[in-house]
Parts: sequence; C-alpha cells; structure tokens
Amino acid sequence: MSSLHLYNTLSRKLELFQPITQGHVGIYICGPTVYGPPHLGHLRGPIVFDVLRRYLIHNGYNVRFVRNITDVGHLVGDSDEGEDKLDKQAKVEKLEPMEVAQTYTNQYNAVMDKMNIIKPSIEPRATGHIIEQIEMIQVIMDAGLAYAVNGSVYFDVVAYNTNNNYGVLSGRVLEDLLHSQDAISSGPNWVPSQGRALESQDEKRNPSDFALWKKASPDHIMQWNSSWGKGFPGWHIECSAMSAKYLGAYFDIHGGGLDLLFPHHEAEIAQGTVAHKHTPAKYWIHHNMITIAGQKMAKSLGNGILAEQLFNGTHALLDQPYSPMTLRFFILQAHYRGTLDFSNTALLAAQKAWQRMQSAINLIDNLRVVDGSGSMEVDDIVLGIRESMNDDLNTPQVIAHLFELCRRINLVNDGKDQISLGVKTLVQQLRDDVCFGFLGLTLDDKSNSDGLNDAMQILLDLRKNAKKENNWVLGDQIRDALKEKGFEIKDTPEGTVWKL
Amino acid sequence: MSSLHLYNTLSRKLELFQPITQGHVGIYICGPTVYGPPHLGHLRGPIVFDVLRRYLIHNGYNVRFVRNITDVGHLVGDSDEGEDKLDKQAKVEKLEPMEVAQTYTNQYNAVMDKMNIIKPSIEPRATGHIIEQIEMIQVIMDAGLAYAVNGSVYFDVVAYNTNNNYGVLSGRVLEDLLHSQDAISSGPNWVPSQGRALESQDEKRNPSDFALWKKASPDHIMQWNSSWGKGFPGWHIECSAMSAKYLGAYFDIHGGGLDLLFPHHEAEIAQGTVAHKHTPAKYWIHHNMITIAGQKMAKSLGNGILAEQLFNGTHALLDQPYSPMTLRFFILQAHYRGTLDFSNTALLAAQKAWQRMQSAINLIDNLRVVDGSGSMEVDDIVLGIRESMNDDLNTPQVIAHLFELCRRINLVNDGKDQISLGVKTLVQQLRDDVCFGFLGLTLDDKSNSDGLNDAMQILLDLRKNAKKENNWVLGDQIRDALKEKGFEIKDTPEGTVWKL
Repeated sequence: MSSLHLYNTLSRKLELFQPITQGHVGIYICGPTVYGPPHLGHLRGPIVFDVLRRYLIHNGYNVRFVRNITDVGHLVGDSDEGEDKLDKQAKVEKLEPMEVAQTYTNQYNAVMDKMNIIKPSIEPRATGHIIEQIEMIQVIMDAGLAYAVNGSVYFDVVAYNTNNNYGVLSGRVLEDLLHSQDAISSGPNWVPSQGRALESQDEKRNPSDFALWKKASPDHIMQWNSSWGKGFPGWHIECSAMSAKYLGAYFDIHGGGLDLLFPHHEAEIAQGTVAHKHTPAKYWIHHNMITIAGQKMAKSLGNGILAEQLFNGTHALLDQPYSPMTLRFFILQAHYRGTLDFSNTALLAAQKAWQRMQSAINLIDNLRVVDGSGSMEVDDIVLGIRESMNDDLNTPQVIAHLFELCRRINLVNDGKDQISLGVKTLVQQLRDDVCFGFLGLTLDDKSNSDGLNDAMQILLDLRKNAKKENNWVLGDQIRDALKEKGFEIKDTPEGTVWKL
Repeated sequence: MSSLHLYNTLSRKLELFQPITQGHVGIYICGPTVYGPPHLGHLRGPIVFDVLRRYLIHNGYNVRFVRNITDVGHLVGDSDEGEDKLDKQAKVEKLEPMEVAQTYTNQYNAVMDKMNIIKPSIEPRATGHIIEQIEMIQVIMDAGLAYAVNGSVYFDVVAYNTNNNYGVLSGRVLEDLLHSQDAISSGPNWVPSQGRALESQDEKRNPSDFALWKKASPDHIMQWNSSWGKGFPGWHIECSAMSAKYLGAYFDIHGGGLDLLFPHHEAEIAQGTVAHKHTPAKYWIHHNMITIAGQKMAKSLGNGILAEQLFNGTHALLDQPYSPMTLRFFILQAHYRGTLDFSNTALLAAQKAWQRMQSAINLIDNLRVVDGSGSMEVDDIVLGIRESMNDDLNTPQVIAHLFELCRRINLVNDGKDQISLGVKTLVQQLRDDVCFGFLGLTLDDKSNSDGLNDAMQILLDLRKNAKKENNWVLGDQIRDALKEKGFEIKDTPEGTVWKL
C-alpha cells in the first residue's frame, strides 16, 4: 500500500489514514494506573503506539502525543486505625496518595525510557484535571443524560441509547448488556486494588449505567468538592476531559488495549457524543493482549511479571534476564492486533534473532564498496518495508524484510556479493530510518562494561602467560601500560584483579 | 553541635531543629517555572535542599519532600495571527502551553537526575491544583482580606497588616513598601517571559497588594472558570495551596532562594496566616544566589548559562565541559547562605579538588591493614563532620574534614602510616555515609567507555609491536582472543580499528 492504512475498530475496516487537519496528528493513549509497579502488561501498548507515532513523524506529520496518568480512585486510608487516631495524626504521618502515585509514575517512566519510548508531548494527570471533568459532567447533566443520586452522578446509558448507539465501538447490544455482569463499569485491567469498590448498583437506574462522579466515603483519602458533594471523578470521564482539552473535541487517533474497548472507550464515545456532539476520535486503534502460556496475565494466576523481573531475570518463569531491546524486538515480531504469547522460550528465540540482526547491522559501515555498480540491490526491501508499515503497521513483515537485508549484508561481507557506494548508503539509511528510526530499536549495550571486562581479561591472561614463560619484559610492559592509563592491577591468591 | 541547628530566616537566628511531629519532617521547596530550559541558577537550591533532605534521612527521619512545578501563568497565543485565524485553527495546530511545560519539566528533571538529586516525594503541578487554589482564595475573601475587581482578586495587604505583620519574614516595613516599586508582585527570578504581565496597578487598592486570581485576557491560553470569571491563579497562592494539601497547614521546613524571600514567601505567610490561622512553616531556609564575576545572573547581562552548556562546555565563559559532580562539589564548597561566584577558574579549581578526593577514595578498599591497632585514627574527623553538618549544614567544613581524611589515607597508602581493620571500616563508612551519602556525590564516570578505549589501545599496541618483532604467535593470540570475545579488529592504512 502506498499510503498508511490502519484498522479502525470503530468501522471494523482497514481505512486509509487521513488526518483531520492537514500535516497534524493528535493521538491520545490511555496510560497507566499508578498504584503498582510497572509489569509486562504495561509494555506492549506503549511500544505499539510509539512505533505508530515514530512512523507518522517519519512521514512528515507534526504529532501531538498525549498519554495520561490515572492517579485517582483506588486508595483509601488504613481503616484499622479508626477515626479517632486518623483525626489526631499529622498530615505528614498519614499515607498520602499522591506520594504513592508519584513513586509508581517515576517507576513507569523509567521503564518507558529503558524501552526507548519517546516521552509523551503531554502527560496529564487525572487529579490535575478535576475542574475539566466536573465541567464535562455538568454538560452531560444539562443535556439530561446523567443523574445524581446520593452525591454520585451516573451516565444514563438507556436514555443515551434512544438516539445513539451505546455499542457502536464494541459491537455490544444494550439489550444483552442490561442482563449481563459485563455492563458494570470496571477499572483498568490488572490493577492491584488497594481499596474497596464504591460502585453502588442500587443507585443506578440500569446496571449498564456508569459513574461520572463518585461520592467519597469518609476513609477515601482523595476527594474534591463539587456541586454534588465531596467525591472524585469516575474513570471514564478523565480521558474524555483530558483528550478534549489537549487535542480538541474531535481528534485523529485514540489508542489503547483491547481490554479497554469496553466499557472504557465505549463510555468515552458516549460522553464525547453528548458533551461535544461528536465521536471523540476518528480512528480507534486497539492492540491485543499478552498471554502467558496461553493464559491471561493475572495476579491470581501467579503469572504477573514485573518489568524489573524481566530485566533482571528473577521471575520463576524466566531462565535469564532479557535486555529492554530484546523485549521490544519480541513485541514487534507479532502484529499488534494478534495476541502475543509470552514464554522464556519465545524470549530466548527473540534474543537470538535480535542478536543476529545486530551482528549484521554492525557490519554495515565496514562493507567494502566496489566502483560502479555492485549486484546487491535493496529497492525491493525499501518497497516491502513501506508496504508492510502502510498495511496496518505490519512490523513482523518489516522484520522479515530486514532479515532479508541482513542476509544480503552477510553475503557482501563474506565476499560472495558486491555492493556499490550508492546501495551501501541506502542500507545505512534503512538502518537509521527503519531499525533505529520508526521501529525504535537501539543496539544492546553489550555494554562497554562487558566489553571492558573482556578486554581486561585478555590483557591479564596475556600477562599471566608471559610471566609463566618468563617473558618478564612483556609482563612488565602490560602492567606499565595499564598503570599509565589509570588501571590498577593487583595479584591476589584468587588471581589478578583490576580496577579503573 | 550535637544536634542539627538551622538558620531560620523567620527568627533571624540559628535554631535547634525540632520537627513538629516526632520522627517526621515535611519539606516544601519552590520548584522551577517551566517556560525555559534549565540553567545554572536552577542548580544551587535543589542541591542545597537535597543535602538537607539526605542529612535528615541519615538522622533517621521520615521525610516527605515536596517540590512543585510552576506551569501556569505566562504563555499567551501568537497575537499576530488575529482573532479570526485563531478561531479557525484546530486545537492540534495551536501552541499548547502544557506541551511547552512538559518539555521543560522533562529537561529540568533530566538535569536533576544528572546532579544526583533524589526525586521529590511529590512533584505537584500548579495547573493540577486550581480547585485547591480557588478554595483558598475564597477563604481569604470570606475573611475580608481579599477583594475582587473586574474579574481579578487581590490580597489586601494593608488590611492584613492591621492585625498582622506583613514583613515578618523579610523585615520590610509596609509604610516603606507603599511608596516603593518593590512592592509589586513579581514572578520568579530570571524566567524568560513569553507573555505580557497582567498586573493592573489601577485595580489595586494599594501598590503592595498582590493578585490571588487574575482575569485572563482573551489571548491568554491557559485559563479556568471561577466564580470571579475566567482566569488563572496568582503565583503566590499555588505554593500555599499545594504545601497545605500535601504537608498540612503547618509543616516543618519551607525552602527557596533568597530571591523568593520577598514578595513570594512573605505573601505565602500572609495567605497561610489568613486561611489556616497559622504561619505555614516552622523553619524558613533560604540559600543565597550564584553570581558570575560578581554580577547577578541575567539574560540582559549575557551571562545566563544553560545546564547543557555547563555539561558540554559550549558557553563563552567556559573553557571546557564540567561533570555534574564537579558542579555539585563546587556548590557544596560554599556555605549555602553565602553568595557563590561562578567562573571558569573557580570550576577548574573545584574539578581538581574533586579529582584529588576521588583519587583518595579509590585507594580506600585496597588499603593494607595491620594486625592490632594502627596509628591512623578518624574519630576527630567523624566528630568534626557531624559538628559541621549540625552547624547549619556547613558543607565547606565537611569537605575540609574529608580532605584531612584523604591526607591520612594517602599516608597509609604510601606506607608512612598504618591503619587497623576497625579504622579502615570506619573510613569506608565515612565514604558511604558522608561523601556518597548526605553530600550526594558519586564518582565521576571515567566511564567504562573511556576505560574500554584505553584497554583496547594497549592490546592493539601489543599486537602491533608483536608483529613488528615478527612474534606472530603473540599477534595471532591477541587477534584470536579478541575475536572470541566478539571484538572485530581491522587493519586499515590509518591504523588498526576495532569494534564490539
């Protein structure tokens, strides 16, 4: 395909991407709920949408990328302490939800940096947009499509559905929903719950209604004043309010995981349709989930893996640590709309493949060129990569094309094929634009520190052998050269140790 | 001094530090205004208060450290574009203040990380606390000490001064202020102004009154609804609202630069006194400013140096780049209440001193201990460091004690003195608790990458010599060992090059 096509969940079709405003693209991605450490489930979405963002930038668009922080909702005080004790406690002694949120926001962002994900243009916090949420709720109430009960406010899904289709995105049918537990508004998938749900099914006119504003129980320690009383916003309204504020009432791309399709994104469409008379986004892009041995990730299944455990290999399901780029490569090896099954075996295979690719990449700059035209060509690969990306971001296909490129690089390197200067320049451009560009990969640091250890080991072995062979000149030469460069070496009973 | 004493600007005395709540310390520091890149003036405060925080933690306190982000106020749209064009522009095409704020917040935090400053426990944004600010303004209005004019709200300093002392912190006298330009509320020092001041002297009852809420002009692109109309909060109220929210109405330590003493902190005291019937903080700690060749830093003087320029040495006043730890060391070499004059010469001296200290630190682990008691002692140094820190964080004295420690380490290393295992352990503890602990220094990375280059150079030189001397066995041995470890070496006309 000569232009970018994306699968739009809203139309259930592959569509040509055409931005609403020429040259500009606004993207909103549902970000993390920051009440727990970042885990495997946090990785796929940010990588998928990072590739989309990079590819749009590569194609010359000016992209505003908004990814929110959900920092409101779940935390309650320690009720064991009793009202009296709580009242007497100084503020500084009490659990402060914003301190918890800050800690996990920092951890999440550190993982995003490691995965080479470009920072969002704007990273709005839900708690920082209470006014905007209250105002949007008021508009929905004024339209007669929300009602207040006991200090909480609910969106009236049945009334909305009279003139609209609650189910336009997810394909669900309201009649079915009214008789199903699925209708109940739930929080983000796999969030460690640190509090009690405040859903009051009795207060709702219909089970599919969802909360726009929740009355805060006394032990709920994050709450604000509103005309409905003290409380806090529902989860769905935050994304509606923040996306409208920073991207407008109608923006280009709304992304998230399939687990957010219903009710979260369905609710966003309903809210936006009432408040702004418009479906909020033109393209709705959903990535599929990561499974582990075919099963959903869940704390209860004991297969939840923290990002930190991936990097240091300490989880029971892992045989070794994996580099951030191995994980990124692993995720890009699957199409974003397919499930991705996670296992140590699969990661190991991804690691090997990525190492093979890196080996070939490392050869590029030193390939010897021939005068005139060599026989190696890359036009088909350039074309293939463009077509694959334009076909709904088919990164596995892109990687297959890159491996074909690696094969050809190796042939030239082994003297079995020849490359011209022009083609070599194209190959370098492919490396920079595709691999390091919109795929967002970076060479693993077989880091300088590993390299240094290896180089020092060779030097110390040489010195040991020299001494064994009574070649004192060489032994001293090595020692002196190291000393001059600031290395300290020391012979111990356990062998020679060094430090810089 | 056997316990921590701090100079309290409020009492103008050195006072024994006693937290309000046993075991806990709440600290609020005025953070950056994020409408420009981080510069030299941004470094001193965070380092000074990082040392204070680390020292309190070292002394067993549980510290909640709040540093805000001022992301509201100055930005207006491009008025050249005219109302019509603005109205027709899509949201995604327009300048978005939060995108600007996010960019500079990220840059600021990257510099903080480089300087080894612990991240705040909570980093609240002013725009994220509009409700809290509006509520606090309302309390002040209800108390009769603020008035609304044309959609703006001002604090009535004269009325406040009837029963309180507006000047209790700064020592200024209101009578004088009423006839001085100084009274006019100004923004943070050295903020690149990207908009027009909205101060309306005509609206104020007295020139020393300051704005709590400012009516937004139509081109002001960051504004919220309030009962006084569309507008945005004044600068002083944000710190009052956020410190009270996260630390309580009365907390332990409020810190900032001397440039914030008046009117910012004076105004905070007035606001807190009215809204919470209490001076907000017990201890007010102010660090002095950095000067350049004796002059105040200012854009107009052309001596504003960006943090990036310090690290890469590209500013005209600098002869070379300086490492983050050289800068930290330089700042700690002066007492926080004295001015610190910045120059290339002074930085060079700091770099040399810090290198000398690092050399001695690097010797510690390899010091040979003697059985029984050596003659080297450190009790006087341990005591001296504690007394210096307790004497209003006298870091230059602490550094002097550390240099005495370095002298003794070198004596032992040179065989001119002897150290026992017990004392060596104490020295290691001093290094970890003081140098790497509350001073927050880390060894400069004479990075692995430099080390690797050096080690490889030695290996390649050995190989070159071996070949010159027709020692093919050794030459091949080096080449093979490198190859096995994944190094590629290649002989070129310009010499041998290598890559990992």
